[in-house]
Amino acid sequence: MIYDLIIIGAGPAGLTASIYASRYGLKHLIIGIAQGGTAAEAYRVENYPGCPSITGNELMEKFLSQAKEYQVEITNAEVMRIEKSKNIFKIKTNLNKDIETKTIILALGMHHRTLSVPGEKEFFGRGVTYCPTCDGPLFKNKVVAVVGGGDSALTSSLFLSKIAKKVYLIHCKKSFDGQIAWQKKVNQEKNIVKILNRQVREIRGQRFVDHLVLDKPYKNKKVLGVDGLFVEIGSLPAGQKIIFDPALKRDRSGYVVVDGFLKTSIPGLFAAGDITAPPDKLRQIITAAAEGAIAAKGVQNFLAKN
Amino acid sequence: MIYDLIIIGAGPAGLTASIYASRYGLKHLIIGIAQGGTAAEAYRVENYPGCPSITGNELMEKFLSQAKEYQVEITNAEVMRIEKSKNIFKIKTNLNKDIETKTIILALGMHHRTLSVPGEKEFFGRGVTYCPTCDGPLFKNKVVAVVGGGDSALTSSLFLSKIAKKVYLIHCKKSFDGQIAWQKKVNQEKNIVKILNRQVREIRGQRFVDHLVLDKPYKNKKVLGVDGLFVEIGSLPAGQKIIFDPALKRDRSGYVVVDGFLKTSIPGLFAAGDITAPPDKLRQIITAAAEGAIAAKGVQNFLAKN
Repeated sequence: MIYDLIIIGAGPAGLTASIYASRYGLKHLIIGIAQGGTAAEAYRVENYPGCPSITGNELMEKFLSQAKEYQVEITNAEVMRIEKSKNIFKIKTNLNKDIETKTIILALGMHHRTLSVPGEKEFFGRGVTYCPTCDGPLFKNKVVAVVGGGDSALTSSLFLSKIAKKVYLIHCKKSFDGQIAWQKKVNQEKNIVKILNRQVREIRGQRFVDHLVLDKPYKNKKVLGVDGLFVEIGSLPAGQKIIFDPALKRDRSGYVVVDGFLKTSIPGLFAAGDITAPPDKLRQIITAAAEGAIAAKGVQNFLAKN
Repeated sequence: MIYDLIIIGAGPAGLTASIYASRYGLKHLIIGIAQGGTAAEAYRVENYPGCPSITGNELMEKFLSQAKEYQVEITNAEVMRIEKSKNIFKIKTNLNKDIETKTIILALGMHHRTLSVPGEKEFFGRGVTYCPTCDGPLFKNKVVAVVGGGDSALTSSLFLSKIAKKVYLIHCKKSFDGQIAWQKKVNQEKNIVKILNRQVREIRGQRFVDHLVLDKPYKNKKVLGVDGLFVEIGSLPAGQKIIFDPALKRDRSGYVVVDGFLKTSIPGLFAAGDITAPPDKLRQIITAAAEGAIAAKGVQNFLAKN
């Protein structure tokens, strides 16, 4: 059997693509290991319109049950290789059988780069976060740290300086990598304290983050009391190990290059959500979901025409 | 007082922009006549992820109450003129006082072109619709008509031919205006019946649409029995009467030209939702909401930098 569409990824983009694909009458299958994607890990989502203050997991359960109302199949497999010949894609997974399809929506999302220090996993969602837009408002009048030296670390510090009482901006190098305009702005904010040439070695606390341990003393102390830690050291698009034949165009960070209709360099292959370029676009549940809908519409147009 | 941001329009894009702007700590005001925009008119929304099967009005009430949780002001006024000088926008409305702001998000949406025939308003939401993506699935195995001759009429007919038992495609001219590729596809579908050189004069029924009255007989009858009517004769972006100084770049249909970050030709002025180009993009509540979030992020970046 040849599917109309295979959706790879079961986060906000993939599940929304499925809802739209079902309504367009497309015979499709979702291949997804992590149901709900990274969105399901968010400890609270307050900016998804229509669902005020909900856990990421609850919101993704809603997406999932809505997709399942249309009897969509979801299979738990890892995609290894995607080949296209004679207008049919062949998807090779870690399972026995190849899957054949006329179109694909790649919606595998991304991973935030992590510090990989003790305490980071344990305190994730309890002070450790990777999303200032999502979680910044939780730290009103508190003390937070931002780790990183690029644009996202600088702009996150500026944003958080309006909310938090104090922002430590910690970077491992002697100077920041981000744009000078942002660096100047950071210098103007009195409640941003720059800590250069230092690394976070450990995150400690009881139930919530309480303090960070640095590799070298800052003001004679290796310990820095904080209520929250924003890790802003970049992110990586997922699925980089998948082999595409013909090759799939990615940007130099590995994000999938798409046009305004979410077409990739391979006709019939669309991409949606956090995996798509540019790297500095807004990455939110609402934006990923919208891209899922747009990609499904693109598939519907593609199949009608071909 | 000078606002950080004025959001013009209170539909999915404007309300989502407000939720994000509040969380970014931006002092802002929404100017909107129709709370919920055209989305509030949808008789049922089944493809907004997270809120399965809800009326447009109920969904927009959710957006509105979520925006209001952050104490946003909403004023009911009509915008007449927008001037920018010395990095400050002056917004002139039909009220007495000008409003001053550093940035604007234009989110006025669009209107579908209507047939302007008896019965169209009365049966809106009871068989008459302007959105095949939204409402197509309601007409499974029923008889529908599509009015129009462009790409959207042709592609809508193709889409509906997979769902409905029969699709009448009615166009006032002797031939279609849409792409030949679509015309060929339409010719191949046995359940699409083309009725050229005819206009719909009236829409009749009891509680729901029952039949259309044509201007000239088709197969000796002026009356055509249908369960639904999809009006696909184009749409118009709203707010075209607003005067911008400096001028705002629009496409030839009047849609506001934006880049991937929703910046318009005027620095500090962003646009989001149905009002933005290109004309053939997917226009849904989820996509408009995502654009609202992206525009708010753009404003936050703009204000941090300037």
